[in-house]
Amino acid sequence: MNACVRAVVRTALYHGVEVYGIMRGYSGLIKGEIVRLDTTAVANMVQRGGTLLKSARSQKFTTREGRQEAYNQLVHHGIEGLVVIGGNGTFTGAQLFEQEFGIPTVGAPGTIDNDLYGTDYTIGYDTAVNTALEAIDKIRDTADSHDRAFFVEVMGRDSGYIAIPCAIGGGAEIVLVPEQEQSLESVIDMLQAGRKRQKSSFLVVVAEGDEEGNATTVAAKVKEAIPELDVRVTVIGHIQRGGAPSAADRLLASQIGIAAVEGLINGMHSVMAGIIDRKLVYTPFEDCIKRKKPLNQSFMRMIEILST
Amino acid sequence: MNACVRAVVRTALYHGVEVYGIMRGYSGLIKGEIVRLDTTAVANMVQRGGTLLKSARSQKFTTREGRQEAYNQLVHHGIEGLVVIGGNGTFTGAQLFEQEFGIPTVGAPGTIDNDLYGTDYTIGYDTAVNTALEAIDKIRDTADSHDRAFFVEVMGRDSGYIAIPCAIGGGAEIVLVPEQEQSLESVIDMLQAGRKRQKSSFLVVVAEGDEEGNATTVAAKVKEAIPELDVRVTVIGHIQRGGAPSAADRLLASQIGIAAVEGLINGMHSVMAGIIDRKLVYTPFEDCIKRKKPLNQSFMRMIEILST
Amino acid sequence: MNACVRAVVRTALYHGVEVYGIMRGYSGLIKGEIVRLDTTAVANMVQRGGTLLKSARSQKFTTREGRQEAYNQLVHHGIEGLVVIGGNGTFTGAQLFEQEFGIPTVGAPGTIDNDLYGTDYTIGYDTAVNTALEAIDKIRDTADSHDRAFFVEVMGRDSGYIAIPCAIGGGAEIVLVPEQEQSLESVIDMLQAGRKRQKSSFLVVVAEGDEEGNATTVAAKVKEAIPELDVRVTVIGHIQRGGAPSAADRLLASQIGIAAVEGLINGMHSVMAGIIDRKLVYTPFEDCIKRKKPLNQSFMRMIEILST
Amino acid sequence: MNACVRAVVRTALYHGVEVYGIMRGYSGLIKGEIVRLDTTAVANMVQRGGTLLKSARSQKFTTREGRQEAYNQLVHHGIEGLVVIGGNGTFTGAQLFEQEFGIPTVGAPGTIDNDLYGTDYTIGYDTAVNTALEAIDKIRDTADSHDRAFFVEVMGRDSGYIAIPCAIGGGAEIVLVPEQEQSLESVIDMLQAGRKRQKSSFLVVVAEGDEEGNATTVAAKVKEAIPELDVRVTVIGHIQRGGAPSAADRLLASQIGIAAVEGLINGMHSVMAGIIDRKLVYTPFEDCIKRKKPLNQSFMRMIEILST
Repeated sequence: MNACVRAVVRTALYHGVEVYGIMRGYSGLIKGEIVRLDTTAVANMVQRGGTLLKSARSQKFTTREGRQEAYNQLVHHGIEGLVVIGGNGTFTGAQLFEQEFGIPTVGAPGTIDNDLYGTDYTIGYDTAVNTALEAIDKIRDTADSHDRAFFVEVMGRDSGYIAIPCAIGGGAEIVLVPEQEQSLESVIDMLQAGRKRQKSSFLVVVAEGDEEGNATTVAAKVKEAIPELDVRVTVIGHIQRGGAPSAADRLLASQIGIAAVEGLINGMHSVMAGIIDRKLVYTPFEDCIKRKKPLNQSFMRMIEILST
Repeated sequence: MNACVRAVVRTALYHGVEVYGIMRGYSGLIKGEIVRLDTTAVANMVQRGGTLLKSARSQKFTTREGRQEAYNQLVHHGIEGLVVIGGNGTFTGAQLFEQEFGIPTVGAPGTIDNDLYGTDYTIGYDTAVNTALEAIDKIRDTADSHDRAFFVEVMGRDSGYIAIPCAIGGGAEIVLVPEQEQSLESVIDMLQAGRKRQKSSFLVVVAEGDEEGNATTVAAKVKEAIPELDVRVTVIGHIQRGGAPSAADRLLASQIGIAAVEGLINGMHSVMAGIIDRKLVYTPFEDCIKRKKPLNQSFMRMIEILST
Repeated sequence: MNACVRAVVRTALYHGVEVYGIMRGYSGLIKGEIVRLDTTAVANMVQRGGTLLKSARSQKFTTREGRQEAYNQLVHHGIEGLVVIGGNGTFTGAQLFEQEFGIPTVGAPGTIDNDLYGTDYTIGYDTAVNTALEAIDKIRDTADSHDRAFFVEVMGRDSGYIAIPCAIGGGAEIVLVPEQEQSLESVIDMLQAGRKRQKSSFLVVVAEGDEEGNATTVAAKVKEAIPELDVRVTVIGHIQRGGAPSAADRLLASQIGIAAVEGLINGMHSVMAGIIDRKLVYTPFEDCIKRKKPLNQSFMRMIEILST
Repeated sequence: MNACVRAVVRTALYHGVEVYGIMRGYSGLIKGEIVRLDTTAVANMVQRGGTLLKSARSQKFTTREGRQEAYNQLVHHGIEGLVVIGGNGTFTGAQLFEQEFGIPTVGAPGTIDNDLYGTDYTIGYDTAVNTALEAIDKIRDTADSHDRAFFVEVMGRDSGYIAIPCAIGGGAEIVLVPEQEQSLESVIDMLQAGRKRQKSSFLVVVAEGDEEGNATTVAAKVKEAIPELDVRVTVIGHIQRGGAPSAADRLLASQIGIAAVEGLINGMHSVMAGIIDRKLVYTPFEDCIKRKKPLNQSFMRMIEILST
C-alpha cells in the first residue's frame, strides 16, 4: 500500500498537481482527516508493511448524508479527484459517490485475496503468498520431523488464489479451495492411500473460505475418520497482511499508483487501474465489481501431478 | 537440532569414536531404526530446521519391557553410550534406562520453551523467539493500520520465556505469562487507560499456558468488557518450531553437541550439558528434572517501563 | 531449480515414464553421472536453493567427441529424451546435440538474469530480485542513518532486469543498466541537484554489466567529481543465486517442469518451455538464442517519476 | 539502536525526566540539532534498522572549541545528563567532555563488532551475525551446486567476533580472524587435504581485518597456489549494519537503555552500561577504552572439530 501511496504522491508532484492524503479511508474523509503530502512525506515508505494512511470501515459513507459530508470536505480542501485503494466495497462506494457528486475517481486494486476482476494481481497478493509460504516451509520442517498431518489455513474467503501457490510451492499433498468442490471423503481417501504407500507426513492447505469448512473443522473430521493420524492445525492468519512487500508487489504498486494519477489527469473516472498480461488496463468499476476472475484450472491439475 | 547432531557426529569421529543415529527417539531405538553416521551424513545440515533423525513419542519405552528391547538393540549394534536431545521427559527416561542397564547417557537441552534447569538457553529457543517476533512485527503493521487490539499467542506451556522477549521486542503493551498472575481486570484496566490516552492500537502477547487462558479466551473476555474494541487473535503456533536456526542456536547446539560427546568420553553420565554464563556446565538429570529455572523478574518491570 | 527438477520427475512418473537425473550438466552426462530418480528423491526439495543435480561447465561437450560420449551414455541408460535447464549456452549445446544425434530435447529457462527470449520470467529471477531488494533495504537503513551515497551492484551482465525492480522497489534515485546509455555526467548532475535540495542520502543501483563500469568504478568517478560526498559501495554478489525460492519462482518452475516433460511426450523438441502473458509457450531454441527480449522502457520513466 | 533510544526515552518519561534526542551525534550536538522526544516519537521504532537519530562523525568535537559549543547547547536546552551510544571513539569523547564540563554521561555499547570491554554483547552484534549467516547460507547453496571454494568476508576490523559464529554456524571449513595468526600456507594445506578427500566445495570465512589480508587478497593467493580451484569472493559488507534487529538485540538494547537512564538518575557517570553473564554491569569508560575483550579460544577448536 505504501509503495502505491508513494507513487501517487510523486506522480502528482511530477505533473505539478497538489496531493493530499486521506487518513482512514471514507471514515477519515468524512471527518476531514486530510493532510497535505509532499515528497518527503513518502520517503522511506516503500519497504514498509501496513499503510501510513491507515485503514478503516465507514458505515456512515453508505448513507447519503455521510457522502454529502465527504463531498463538503473535498470542496473545502479544493480536491478535484480521488485515488482509492481497495476492493469491491471501496469501488462500490466510489462509484456511487462519483455518480452523486461528480468527483472523478480512479481505483487501485488493494486486496490480498487477488480475486478482483481487472488485474492479474492485486497489490499485496504476492507478499501474502510469500509470507504464507515461508510459514509453510517452517511447518513442513516439523511435519517431517514428527510424521504428522498438518492442516494449514491461509487467507482467501472466496478464492483459492493464495492457497494454490502455497500448495504447489509448499509441496502440499492436498489443497481445498472455494472454487472447487472437493468432498471430505476424497480428502480422507487420499490420506489413506498415502499412508498405504508408507508416506508419514502430509500437508493440506485450506483456503479459509472452503465450503467444507476451515482448517480446524476439516482437520477434526479427518481425525475422526483416521484416528491414528497425528493431526495438527495452523492458521497463518493476520501475518499475511503485514511485512515488507515483495519486489513484485512494490513494482506493481508503483505502476498502479502512477497509472491512477495519470489516468485522472487524462480524464479517466470510475475505473480501476490494473495490469493484465503486463499491460496497463483501466477497467470500469462496474466490471470490477460484477465480473468474476476465474481461477486458472490448470493449477488444480498441477497439484495432482506434483503430489505423485 | 541438526546442528547438534552434526556436532555430535563430527566430535565422535574427531576422537576416533564410531557414531550411530537413532531415528525417532526411544521409539526408533526399540525398533532398531539405527543408522551408521559418517561425516558426509551431516554435511549441509547445520542450516536446516527440523531434525534429520526425526522425533516421536514412545509409550513403550515407559515400560520395563520396552527398555529391555532398547538395550538389546544397543548391544546388538555395539553402542556403549548415548547422547539424548530433549527435555524433562527425555531425561527422565534416560535416567531410568541408565539405572537399569548401565548405559551412560549425556543429555542436550532440546526444547524451545527454555524452561529447563541447567542451561541459560535451550537449543531452538532463540530461533523460536525470532520467528515469533518476525510474525509479531507483521501483525503490528496491521494493528497500526487498522487501529486494532491484537492478542498474539506464542508458545510456552509452563513458562513465559518466549512471551517475554516477544513482548519487549515487539513493543507490546501487555504480556501474560504463567509465572505471574495477572488478573483479567488489570488487563482490561490497562487497555481502557490506553484508550483514554488516545492510543488506537494494542498488542497483547499471551503465553499459551497463561492461567487466564489462551489468547482466544482472553480476547473474548476483553471483547465482552470493551465491546467497541476491534479485537483480533493470532496463534503463531507450529511455525515457531521450524525454520533455519539462528546464529546463536547453531553456536549453542554445536557447543552442546561437542560437550555431550566429550563428556561421555570423559566418563560423565546422567548429566545434561548446558551453558550457564557462557561456561560449559554438566548438571545431573535429577536436578534438570526437579529444579525450576526462574524467569528473570526484571523483565516484567521492563515491559511496564517500555509501554509508558 | 529444485522445484523444476521435482516437477520433471513427478510429471514423468505421473505419465508412467522412467526418469534419470544427470549430475553436473553436460559434464556429468559425458562421465555417466546419471542416477535413477523416483518420487522420494525429490521430496522436500521444493524449498531448497541451489540444485541437487549440481551444475558445471563442460568444455568437452563443445567437441564432437564429447557429444559422442554423451550420446553413448544416453543409449547405455536407455534415455530417449532430455530436459535441459539453463540459458543460451545450454540451449546452443542441446540444439547441436539434437541435430547430430537425434535426441529430442526441451529446455527450461534457468538463468537469474531474465534476459532470455521466449518467457516473461526465467526460473530464479524473482528470487534473485527479492534477495537483492532485501539487501538494499538493509543498506538504505545505513544510508539514511549516515547521510551517505550508496552504489549497490546487482547481477545482470547484459541486462537491467534485476537492477530495475531493485531500483524502483528500493527507492533508488538512479539506476544504471546496460540497455540504456546514461553518461556519468548526468549521474553526477543528478546527485549534485539532489544535494542542492538538501537530500542527504542517495541510492544508486548499478547492473554489473553497465557500460560505465561496475559499481566500484562508477563510485570512484563520482567521488572524484564530488569529493565531499560520503560514498560507499556494496556488491551484492553471489547471495543472489541462493536461498529458498520465492513463491512465484516455485510456481513458474513447477509449470515449466511439467510443460517440458509433457512437451517431450507430445513430440516437441529443440524448444524451450516458457510462460508468456500467463500462457504456456514453446519457443524454438534458435529464437531463444538469437532474439533479444527488450527491457520495458516504461520502467526507466517510472524511476524518473518516483525519485521526484 | 532504535530499540535503545526508545528505552532511553520511555525510561526517562517513566521517571518523570524530560528527554531530548540529539541528531547526528556530537556533530548535531554542536549545531544544536536537538529535539524534544515524547513517547509517540519512539512508537513503532523498535523493529526498525538504522537509527532515527542518525549518525555522523565530528571532527570539531575533538577540539576544545567544539566541545565548548556543545556544552553551550546543552546549557541552552537545560540538559543535565547524556546517554551516548557508540564504541571507543564515542566514549573517549564523552569522557573528555565530562572532565571539562562536568556533564554526567552514561554509555551504551553500540558497535556491531562486539570487541568492546564491559559487556558480553554489543547492540547490533547479534543482528549482524544473523544477517551475515543468512547470506552465507545462500552462498553455500551456490558453492555446493557448483563445486566452488567461496571466500566470504564479514565485518570485524580488529576482531573475529562476527567471523567465528558465521564460520561455525555456516559450516565453514576455515576461518581467518585477526586474533589468531594463521599462515596462508596452512590454509592452502587444508584446502589441498580436503580436495584429496574428494571434498568439492569449500567455505572460508574471513574477518575483514585479518592479518593475511581481506577475502579478495586471500582468495587471489589461494588461486595462485591451487589454480584448478574454482575460487569466488563475496564481501557481505554494509548489509550487516541494517535490517530489523534480532530478538536478542532488541532485548539487550532495551535493557541497556533502561540501565543508562537509571544509572544517570542514580548518579553514575563516565561509565558504560553492559550485560555480563546476564547481569547489569557499569564499567568505567576508561576500562572500556583501554582493556581488551579476548575472543573465546574454545571457538577456534570448535571449527577444527566441526570441519572434521
